[in-house]
Amino acid sequence: MKIAFIGLGNMGGPMALNLHKAGHTLSAFDLSADACRKFAAEGLPIANSAAATVDGAEVVISMLPASAHVDGLYFGSGEQAGLLEKIPAGTLVIDSSTIAAATSRKVAEAAAKRGIAVIDAPVSGGTGGAIAGTLTFMVGGEEADLERARPVLEKMGANIFHAGAAGAGQTAKICNNMLLGILMIGTSEALALGVANGLDPKVLSEIMRRSSGGNWALEKYNPMPGVMETSPASKNYAGGFGTDLMLKDLGLSQENAAAVRASTPLGGLARSLYAAHSLAGHGAQDFSSVIKLLQTKAN
Amino acid sequence: MKIAFIGLGNMGGPMALNLHKAGHTLSAFDLSADACRKFAAEGLPIANSAAATVDGAEVVISMLPASAHVDGLYFGSGEQAGLLEKIPAGTLVIDSSTIAAATSRKVAEAAAKRGIAVIDAPVSGGTGGAIAGTLTFMVGGEEADLERARPVLEKMGANIFHAGAAGAGQTAKICNNMLLGILMIGTSEALALGVANGLDPKVLSEIMRRSSGGNWALEKYNPMPGVMETSPASKNYAGGFGTDLMLKDLGLSQENAAAVRASTPLGGLARSLYAAHSLAGHGAQDFSSVIKLLQTKAN
Amino acid sequence: MKIAFIGLGNMGGPMALNLHKAGHTLSAFDLSADACRKFAAEGLPIANSAAATVDGAEVVISMLPASAHVDGLYFGSGEQAGLLEKIPAGTLVIDSSTIAAATSRKVAEAAAKRGIAVIDAPVSGGTGGAIAGTLTFMVGGEEADLERARPVLEKMGANIFHAGAAGAGQTAKICNNMLLGILMIGTSEALALGVANGLDPKVLSEIMRRSSGGNWALEKYNPMPGVMETSPASKNYAGGFGTDLMLKDLGLSQENAAAVRASTPLGGLARSLYAAHSLAGHGAQDFSSVIKLLQTKAN
Amino acid sequence: MKIAFIGLGNMGGPMALNLHKAGHTLSAFDLSADACRKFAAEGLPIANSAAATVDGAEVVISMLPASAHVDGLYFGSGEQAGLLEKIPAGTLVIDSSTIAAATSRKVAEAAAKRGIAVIDAPVSGGTGGAIAGTLTFMVGGEEADLERARPVLEKMGANIFHAGAAGAGQTAKICNNMLLGILMIGTSEALALGVANGLDPKVLSEIMRRSSGGNWALEKYNPMPGVMETSPASKNYAGGFGTDLMLKDLGLSQENAAAVRASTPLGGLARSLYAAHSLAGHGAQDFSSVIKLLQTKAN
Repeated sequence: MKIAFIGLGNMGGPMALNLHKAGHTLSAFDLSADACRKFAAEGLPIANSAAATVDGAEVVISMLPASAHVDGLYFGSGEQAGLLEKIPAGTLVIDSSTIAAATSRKVAEAAAKRGIAVIDAPVSGGTGGAIAGTLTFMVGGEEADLERARPVLEKMGANIFHAGAAGAGQTAKICNNMLLGILMIGTSEALALGVANGLDPKVLSEIMRRSSGGNWALEKYNPMPGVMETSPASKNYAGGFGTDLMLKDLGLSQENAAAVRASTPLGGLARSLYAAHSLAGHGAQDFSSVIKLLQTKAN
Repeated sequence: MKIAFIGLGNMGGPMALNLHKAGHTLSAFDLSADACRKFAAEGLPIANSAAATVDGAEVVISMLPASAHVDGLYFGSGEQAGLLEKIPAGTLVIDSSTIAAATSRKVAEAAAKRGIAVIDAPVSGGTGGAIAGTLTFMVGGEEADLERARPVLEKMGANIFHAGAAGAGQTAKICNNMLLGILMIGTSEALALGVANGLDPKVLSEIMRRSSGGNWALEKYNPMPGVMETSPASKNYAGGFGTDLMLKDLGLSQENAAAVRASTPLGGLARSLYAAHSLAGHGAQDFSSVIKLLQTKAN
Repeated sequence: MKIAFIGLGNMGGPMALNLHKAGHTLSAFDLSADACRKFAAEGLPIANSAAATVDGAEVVISMLPASAHVDGLYFGSGEQAGLLEKIPAGTLVIDSSTIAAATSRKVAEAAAKRGIAVIDAPVSGGTGGAIAGTLTFMVGGEEADLERARPVLEKMGANIFHAGAAGAGQTAKICNNMLLGILMIGTSEALALGVANGLDPKVLSEIMRRSSGGNWALEKYNPMPGVMETSPASKNYAGGFGTDLMLKDLGLSQENAAAVRASTPLGGLARSLYAAHSLAGHGAQDFSSVIKLLQTKAN
Repeated sequence: MKIAFIGLGNMGGPMALNLHKAGHTLSAFDLSADACRKFAAEGLPIANSAAATVDGAEVVISMLPASAHVDGLYFGSGEQAGLLEKIPAGTLVIDSSTIAAATSRKVAEAAAKRGIAVIDAPVSGGTGGAIAGTLTFMVGGEEADLERARPVLEKMGANIFHAGAAGAGQTAKICNNMLLGILMIGTSEALALGVANGLDPKVLSEIMRRSSGGNWALEKYNPMPGVMETSPASKNYAGGFGTDLMLKDLGLSQENAAAVRASTPLGGLARSLYAAHSLAGHGAQDFSSVIKLLQTKAN
């Protein structure tokens, strides 16, 4: 199967490589010449432009940073024509960017008028999951289109969820990541409060993990250094999922909440706390470093 | 073994009964004559006063509503002498009340001077766990005293954690319950946001449960009616753990946070949200009903 | 001077009438035929379309509900051409809608390329201020363009502030209204806490008003019924500035905060509290009714 | 009039000196020998103990750091007998400490049984107000007792408010200071958001001050350096009212809110934000420095 792949960043690059290694014929592109050179060196066939990738492609995949890039790619921006004018009817488009659900719906609707099928399929699992091919896809769109996409998605991920109609993949992702952002701060507060009272964070973590405070952060990703050998906290908060990425996802959740007039008191507060943590200079550290906001600053 | 048991409420009553059924010789008391009559009818030997229960007892257990009651019981109040003056040296005291850690430490210190061993052993698991004998005990105090208490605790509970020194049981419990209070509201926000965007709460729950949003509320206690047959949400929020009990525990966590100058932004906010929910008339409903604060009010 | 006026809602209608009464030659329009009929009856000359209003106008004023309407008006939507194509170079455009600063900047930039001057001039002061001609204008744009607009603005308002370059009027307004939303809830919390402790809300209001808690809500708009005869609280929260309008402005503030990665913990929380209050059925009541969220519900 | 004065800290010392300068006969004491020496050097008559100050005093004034100190002073602690046993019936006690309302009520009730009148009279106005004699007193207790105290209070303060019965002075103070803590953060958020959008903080401050965002912080105490020459912000946040003092008052407000089950979402959050700011090492700076939490950290 011939696949066009647009967007070769820290996530998109390894995803494209996994499709290439699985035997698909790829045509890939990124606006950054560096990114193109880097993945060309790993064997990925690089096209001269986004438009050039889609020639003869059955599937088009995009993995871009934000709503504006996806909007620009498919509808055009400035002199550049939109890709929807270039893609033939019958093609399947998989947009794996994490963007506003409204933008996903807008692309899907415009594409449908031209006979192009679009699913939104944002991922979780980080760069580690992208490299290992164990990402989780949260998909919005028609069931039939997801089934067409499944063999391709399975080369890049381990879990595929169908969240609902167009845009539902985006909504599921921001709901999940808003909750994750809350879990991490809540867990950090509980641990910091225990430690301030003289408790051992390992003991307290174990008690809560096996009680009603149990959650993914305690299970897989303890924010307190030394409690869990493999967590970013024990590696000086390197690697993992950056504070600024969590901040972006929480920003999307709040934009969405404002649009539908939902009440998200903890989610909105979490966004502001990660923002404060980023302003203090920790935007590039793993998001679990937010616990520093609750701890005495070492001098 | 002869055991004194003081406090026969919804939790203490069934706990005492389990000890009685396990073959211990009990002497029980509650200030409420109704409570005494009720458990006398179930076979529990009732004494005439708290002081009368401790005659010849090797172990004294108390299960009272709040710090002031525990303080009054052990140190006396008004005309009433404190129980510490009555309990012989060498006795083991197990206080299972959920109270301020500072009060637990105060009792333990005063008792130690008289040669009386005290552990704080607050529980989680609700009235269901009290009846079934499957409570979780979070214990503060000396390791050796916990070992003395263990055979007794095992008659009432399924999990026993040693959290640390005197008061650590209380601290572990309020840390855990603060986190639980946050998990429940965070999960409610994510579900309400998804539903406002047209997602099916069952589908979204399943996605988040298996992703990084996974937590005890999604696993055991989904707040959205109809998602989980056995959760209080599906029984009109009857039974379970009442909003006002969660509010009390979060109040203890904030009192503690103020005392040690800890920062608990989500925990403090959770307290105020449960308070608002209680003021709106839902104090007696299960705490997962807090999701109503985030939903359009049915008229 | 000939003035085109587009948007005859509760704010725009009275503003246009004040210009008409001041002797300007108006040509007005609203998409709602009802609104057109209503103000035609009051003597306002009504045009057949937005495009028709601008023929020969020296100044074009728009007063629309949200960013999407302003975008649609000036850039076109569907079959409808954008007004910027119709307005002659040299015209001054005053947009008094409360919308995203980004949209204001986009309109101003596109207009500048065609030689059209645009200022954003959102207002505060409510429908009362619109009728009385005592609105406050917060203006973004060139100083010279504000000076051109001043004689017109002075017919509709009592205070005119120059906040900065294009979009700055919008930013100043959402900053002010975010702060107002916080002041109102903060004041409500302080009063509710005092009352829960047995204090007289009149006495407490007077103490705080003259101390460091002093703020606009205590001075002009006390949220507790009976404290201030003229406040909406004393009129069953009728009139004033609706909860849903405050919710819209706080939504804009959070959208903006997400875009610039600002931390607004109280502002974000205020949005969610007004949202909860609206979901409970109080969206049309004055925003000071948010105090109900903190009070025992009368049954 | 002979006055006993106990507690010669940064507030109590200058207050006692003002009474001394006004011609009253004082007998003063502080547990810190340094404090006693310092004010002895300024001419204040120093007694050997708290108990010794009350001999022949018509009025007893206390100014202590926290509830525990006031409790210890009047009821005794350890070997030390309580001052209530020493003070003759008919004496007027003025406690100006900022403490829990419950402690104030407890002291007043116990004193009343001995024929001793007590008013709680916490102050605002800071060390500057203490030195200048321009403090604000918020008084709880009987009207007649306040009238007896008035001539003494007027030597130390410029404003005297009667908030209600015993404890009401404390409640009024924590309500006011909770609101102040909120105003300061809310104002900081609005200014930081404006600046992040390119606005001039002086211009934005002036707009909001004269609009519905107007509040004491914008009027007297702008948190942004350079906007107001006389504010602590323009003096590197030196002087003024320390972050840790605001944190203490907000802690009292949250302890009180938990006790009466009040909902204080913004007040509770404000406490946690000042706590985070203190943990980051700014506890001794003026509380308006909390704006740093919302700004890019200068490196």
